[in-house]
Amino acid sequence: MATFHIGECIRKTKQQIPLSSEEIRQLVQGVTAEPPIPDYQLAAWLMAVCFSGLNDDETAALTMAMRDSGQVMHWELDGPVADKHSTGGVGDKTTLILAPIVAACGVYMPKMSGRGLGHTGGTIDKLESIPGLSTALDPADFLALVKKAGFAVAMQTGNLAPADKKLYALRDVTETVDSIPLICASIMSKKLATGADHILLDVKVGSGAFMKNDTDAAELARRMLSAAKADGRDCTAILTDMDRPLGMCIGNAIEVREAIEVLAGDTGSELGTFCITLAAELLRMAGRGTAAQCLKMAEQAVTSGAAMERLAMMIAGQGGDARVTENPALLKFSACERTLKAPRDGWISAMLSEEIGRASVLLGAGRMTKNDAIDPGAGIRLCCKNGDAVKRGDALLTMYAEKESQLDEAEAMLRQAILLADEKPEPAPLIHSTYSTAQ
Amino acid sequence: MATFHIGECIRKTKQQIPLSSEEIRQLVQGVTAEPPIPDYQLAAWLMAVCFSGLNDDETAALTMAMRDSGQVMHWELDGPVADKHSTGGVGDKTTLILAPIVAACGVYMPKMSGRGLGHTGGTIDKLESIPGLSTALDPADFLALVKKAGFAVAMQTGNLAPADKKLYALRDVTETVDSIPLICASIMSKKLATGADHILLDVKVGSGAFMKNDTDAAELARRMLSAAKADGRDCTAILTDMDRPLGMCIGNAIEVREAIEVLAGDTGSELGTFCITLAAELLRMAGRGTAAQCLKMAEQAVTSGAAMERLAMMIAGQGGDARVTENPALLKFSACERTLKAPRDGWISAMLSEEIGRASVLLGAGRMTKNDAIDPGAGIRLCCKNGDAVKRGDALLTMYAEKESQLDEAEAMLRQAILLADEKPEPAPLIHSTYSTAQ
Repeated sequence: MATFHIGECIRKTKQQIPLSSEEIRQLVQGVTAEPPIPDYQLAAWLMAVCFSGLNDDETAALTMAMRDSGQVMHWELDGPVADKHSTGGVGDKTTLILAPIVAACGVYMPKMSGRGLGHTGGTIDKLESIPGLSTALDPADFLALVKKAGFAVAMQTGNLAPADKKLYALRDVTETVDSIPLICASIMSKKLATGADHILLDVKVGSGAFMKNDTDAAELARRMLSAAKADGRDCTAILTDMDRPLGMCIGNAIEVREAIEVLAGDTGSELGTFCITLAAELLRMAGRGTAAQCLKMAEQAVTSGAAMERLAMMIAGQGGDARVTENPALLKFSACERTLKAPRDGWISAMLSEEIGRASVLLGAGRMTKNDAIDPGAGIRLCCKNGDAVKRGDALLTMYAEKESQLDEAEAMLRQAILLADEKPEPAPLIHSTYSTAQ
Repeated sequence: MATFHIGECIRKTKQQIPLSSEEIRQLVQGVTAEPPIPDYQLAAWLMAVCFSGLNDDETAALTMAMRDSGQVMHWELDGPVADKHSTGGVGDKTTLILAPIVAACGVYMPKMSGRGLGHTGGTIDKLESIPGLSTALDPADFLALVKKAGFAVAMQTGNLAPADKKLYALRDVTETVDSIPLICASIMSKKLATGADHILLDVKVGSGAFMKNDTDAAELARRMLSAAKADGRDCTAILTDMDRPLGMCIGNAIEVREAIEVLAGDTGSELGTFCITLAAELLRMAGRGTAAQCLKMAEQAVTSGAAMERLAMMIAGQGGDARVTENPALLKFSACERTLKAPRDGWISAMLSEEIGRASVLLGAGRMTKNDAIDPGAGIRLCCKNGDAVKRGDALLTMYAEKESQLDEAEAMLRQAILLADEKPEPAPLIHSTYSTAQ
C-alpha cells in the first residue's frame, strides 16, 4: 500500500483526477485518527470537492468509509428492517405517521433521529413535546421496544459515523455544505450505519429545501441510490415539493396532534395520502406484496386502529403519556395565539416554506443555534393551502407562542410568506418523481 | 462599516461575487489578528480563489492589505530607489550583477532577499558563500551601507508582510500555491513594502519555472503591473526563458564567481547581455536618460570598473572578504569534481533547468527543507548551452560536491537533463517579452 499524502489527495481532486477507494478510506480514517489530518487540509479538500465534484465510485467509497468510522448496527429481528430519511422539511411529521403504519404491517423501523436546526424541524423535538417521553434510550431498551412495538425513535448518538459529524462541522463553517456528493455521503453514511435493509429517502425540493430545483434533487437522489446499491441495500428516493409546508401544522406538539389526526383516520388529506403512499412503498420494498396490496395494507393499518395502537405502545415504551393518542388536547399549545387574516380576495399562489419555518423559530418552535431551548407548545396551524380561494378577512393561519412580542415578529415574516394571486394558480403535485435501486 | 463575516467572504469568492476592498482588508487583518481567522476558513477561501480567481481590483486590494500587515519601508535617500524581483530561477545571479551596475549609475537598491528552496537558488545563500559576509544587518547599518555603496543585500525579515508569510505557509500545505492572483499578491505585497519607486520584475517562464507557459507568465506580469499601478509605482515586467539555466553556473560560490566575471568585463555572454539590458531598463525607469543612453551608461559602469568597485564596497560593508572581486579563486569549490561528457555527436536541444536545479540540490548547493544546511562550494558549471553542437566525448558540464556519492546521484539526474538532437534546434530567445506600467 502506497504512503498516504493528504496533499496528493487535495491536488488530485483539485485537478479532477479521481481518488482511489483506498485513498478515500485513508482520508476518512485520518479525519478521526489521532493526530487527525489538520482541519485546514480537510477544508481545502472539501472546497476542491465543491468545485471538482466526485464521481459515483468516489462518492460510494466516501459514504462507506464514513459509515465505517463508527458503530455499524446489525439488528437481530425476525422481519425486514426499514428506515426512512427526509432531507429536512418544514412541517414534516411523516415519521410519526409512517413508522406506526409499517410497524403495524410487520416491518421493523428502529429509527435514529436528530434535533431540528434553523427553519427545519426534527423528529426528536416533536416527540419530546409529548409529556414524559424520552429519546435517550439505552440500546437494550431500544431493541426491546422495537421488538414489541415494531418501532422506536432514539436520539442519534455521536458514535454513528463520527467522521461525518466532524466533516459536517467543518463544512458548516467553510461554506462547503452545498456539494451533492458530500451531502449524499453525509446522509447515506448514517443511513447505512443504522443497518436497515430497505431505505426510503424523501428528497425535499423547492424554496424551503436544501435542493432548490428538481435537477439538483434528482442528482442527489441518483447519487444516494448509487451509494446504497454499492452497499447492497434496497433504496427508493421520492422527490417531494417543499414550495409549501407538509401538512397544515408547523411546530412540535401541534405536529404530533396533526400526526395523531391522520392515524385516527384523516387519510384523505394531502398529508394523509402522502404518508399512506410512502408507507405502501416501504411495505412493497420489504416484500409485503404488490404495490396495490401494500397500499391497501397501509390504509387498513390506519382504519383498523392498528397503527395508532403501535404509536401508543411506542410512546408508553419511551416513558411518554400514551393518552395523547386518544386525547390530543393533552398536547398543550402556548398561551398566546393570533390569527392572520387575508388582506384581500384572491387565490393562495405560494406558501414560502422557508419563511414559514423561520417564523415558527421566532415563535419558539425551533432553534437558531444548537443550544437554544425550544417551546414545545409554539407553532403555526395553516387554515388554507396552495391553490385555495380566500375572501378578504378569511383566516389564513393561527400562531401560538409564549409572548405577544414573538407573535409580532412572526406575523411580520408570515405576511411576506403567503402570496395571493388574482387568478387561480396550478400548484405542483406534492410528489414530483420517484427513483429506485430496483429500476 | 458592516460586520465582517469570513463565511460570507468564502461564499462570495466561491460564487465569483467580487469582494469589496474593505472585505479583503478585514480578511487580511484577520490573518494576523489575535485571535486570528481559523486556518480552516482561510484554507477554504484560498481553495475557492484557486477555482474562482480574483479580479484586478480584488488582487490589488489583497496586495495592499498584505503589504500593510507589517512594516512598510520609506527610504531617506537622495536619489531614485529601485528594486528587482525574480520569480525564482536556476542559476539566477542577476541581482549580484545588476545591483552594482545601477548603484554605480546613481540609483539606490536596498535589497531584501530570501534563501533558496527546492530547485531554485536564493541571493542570500549565494552571497553567504563569500567568506565573512553576513546578511543579517542592523537597519541603521543597512541604510548607511546603501547610502555609501548604493546597494546592500539583507535577509528579508519576518515583519515584512507577515500576513503573506502566514498565508504562504498555509498555501504550501493545502495545494493552493498555483493561483496567479495569490502569487501576484504574495510577490507584490513584499515588493511594495520594501518602498522602491521603480520595480523590475523578472518573470521566469518554462519547464524550470513556476509559470510553465507564456500565457500564464504574461497574466502574472499583467496582474503585478496592475497592482503596482494601483499603488502608484513604476514597474516593468520581463518574461525570461527558464527552459535553460541562466548563465553557465549553478550553485553559490560558483555563481558569485560568474557574476564577478561579468562585472570584470565579460558582458558579451548571454548572461552579461541580459544583465546589461535589465540594468539599462531600471536606469531608464529611474529617469537616468533614454533607453539608448541608459544602455551605454550600464555598459560603461562595467568597463570602467565602477560597478565592481560598488560590489567590493558592499561585500566589505557586510563584513565579507572583498578581495574575491579581484581574486575569485578565493571562492572555493568543493573537493570532489567530475566532468560529464557527451555520449554522442549532436546538438544540445534542451537543458532542463528544473532537473539541473534539483541536481545542484543533490550536490549540496541547495536545500529540500527550510532547515537544511548547504555547501557553498557545491555546484555545476555548464560547458555548453542550448543550440551548441557537441562531439562525442566533449565536456557537457562539471560538478562539484563534498562526496563522490553526491556526484553519482547528481550525475544520474543530469544525464536526463541535457537532451541531444540530431538536427540543429532553434533555442527561444532569453527575453520573451516586456511589459511596463508606462505603456
